[in-house]
Amino acid sequence: MRLALGIAYRGVAYRGWQSQPAVPTVQDALEAALSRFAAMPVSTVCAGRTDTGVHGLNQVVHLDTPLDRRPFSWVRGTNRYLPPDIAVQWCRAVPEDFHARNAARGRSYAYLLRESAVRPALEAGLVGWSFRPLAAEPMRVASAHLVGEHDFSAFRSAECQAASPVKTLRRLDIARHGDYWRFDFEASAFLHHMVRNLMGCLVAVGAGLRGPDWVAAVLAGRDRAAAAPTFAADGLYFVGPRYDEDLGLPRRTPAEGWLPGAAEGPCDVSPCP
Amino acid sequence: MRLALGIAYRGVAYRGWQSQPAVPTVQDALEAALSRFAAMPVSTVCAGRTDTGVHGLNQVVHLDTPLDRRPFSWVRGTNRYLPPDIAVQWCRAVPEDFHARNAARGRSYAYLLRESAVRPALEAGLVGWSFRPLAAEPMRVASAHLVGEHDFSAFRSAECQAASPVKTLRRLDIARHGDYWRFDFEASAFLHHMVRNLMGCLVAVGAGLRGPDWVAAVLAGRDRAAAAPTFAADGLYFVGPRYDEDLGLPRRTPAEGWLPGAAEGPCDVSPCP
Repeated sequence: MRLALGIAYRGVAYRGWQSQPAVPTVQDALEAALSRFAAMPVSTVCAGRTDTGVHGLNQVVHLDTPLDRRPFSWVRGTNRYLPPDIAVQWCRAVPEDFHARNAARGRSYAYLLRESAVRPALEAGLVGWSFRPLAAEPMRVASAHLVGEHDFSAFRSAECQAASPVKTLRRLDIARHGDYWRFDFEASAFLHHMVRNLMGCLVAVGAGLRGPDWVAAVLAGRDRAAAAPTFAADGLYFVGPRYDEDLGLPRRTPAEGWLPGAAEGPCDVSPCP
Repeated sequence: MRLALGIAYRGVAYRGWQSQPAVPTVQDALEAALSRFAAMPVSTVCAGRTDTGVHGLNQVVHLDTPLDRRPFSWVRGTNRYLPPDIAVQWCRAVPEDFHARNAARGRSYAYLLRESAVRPALEAGLVGWSFRPLAAEPMRVASAHLVGEHDFSAFRSAECQAASPVKTLRRLDIARHGDYWRFDFEASAFLHHMVRNLMGCLVAVGAGLRGPDWVAAVLAGRDRAAAAPTFAADGLYFVGPRYDEDLGLPRRTPAEGWLPGAAEGPCDVSPCP
């Protein structure tokens, strides 16, 4: 049978999602724990590979297994073998043709930024930082240039393996919560480093180093060298993929309530159906 | 001259505040950084020593120095030598007779608790956890028994060095934010493990394992063995001390906005006067 699982993790200690030799990755830790629980090798396919230091709120993977266990056994049993900074949040049986990456209709990322004269400590690794005061309005004007279908080559890293630089940015919301800014990105898919490269430009605009129309010019120029430097991974959260509603897969995990600006009210996601 | 500094830290990697041989402590890291900046030994006195794993939002220390530097030089210069999980947030000149511990009129702690069927990952070490659903009303009834001047012997660890077990708990507020509960404690001073011992009892009541009046009986019995086990340090934050207003010392640091249930709006604390 095929299962889908939702995974939450703090990316600080990992070289990103994807399995690699000789360095710790989230995929390696997850598959090792799943394999211990299942007492046989288990491999996974994820909805969106995250980079070094990037966090996951509702990463989704699928796996195939001959075992017939209750979904909550997978959650609890796998969590026993996972390190404290990774945990399975839910498990559901899915159709045999479900594919965590290919079935995703869209993906969301959030970027959290602390604006303060001094650097963070308590939230180190979990939040980006601007020592310059930021203004909301110029960043919102800039973001309006970015929403829509565009060639995002200017915001794509040299290592990006995507077939096309054309993506549809469906949403870019910017909200202040106390001394934190939360940027919400939703797109069909993202290029490598796209959110962090967009963040570098938005912060330059928010700090008044550039005007909002500069972002439109950078986008149109399709030249990575014209954009601002890639912003730190620390504040970047893969919120998760979006699938067809009829699959009934959870869209949230409780940890989303941890981020500033989260909706009030408990999460309605249960770990098993 | 005498200086007061506000320190924020994540306690996960430290054996608490107080300097000890052969183990990492926040005080040791801070004094090493201050001494490097000052190019001479600097020692500090803190407002409230925190335990292993407990976090600080606005720990306050005082120190004496012959150096005549601008307060912001102390902030920026010391932060350069501190690890990422500790940072000076502000610095002020204070009268020669100011004493960070003795001048404190009260202290505040916050406890953050995640209520969910599965354990936290992203927030591991930064939040306590209850897999049992909690009810607010019984916990609020129990908290009303605790507020006021009482002999808190039932909630005091065996190692507690306080001269008297009688303390005044001025405030105990309980609020739910999404899947997180925030408990706010304010007292003249706290006994060793007092907040964590109170949390153990409040969670037992919230989960329905005990009735709210049981807490009153435990308090009156003054017997530590009758209370619930000490709750995890993970979700415990030393919010900070309160001093006479005319000292003009900051009450908040930006990191307070990171905690669920924080007031909206940027912090008005500046790192220097």
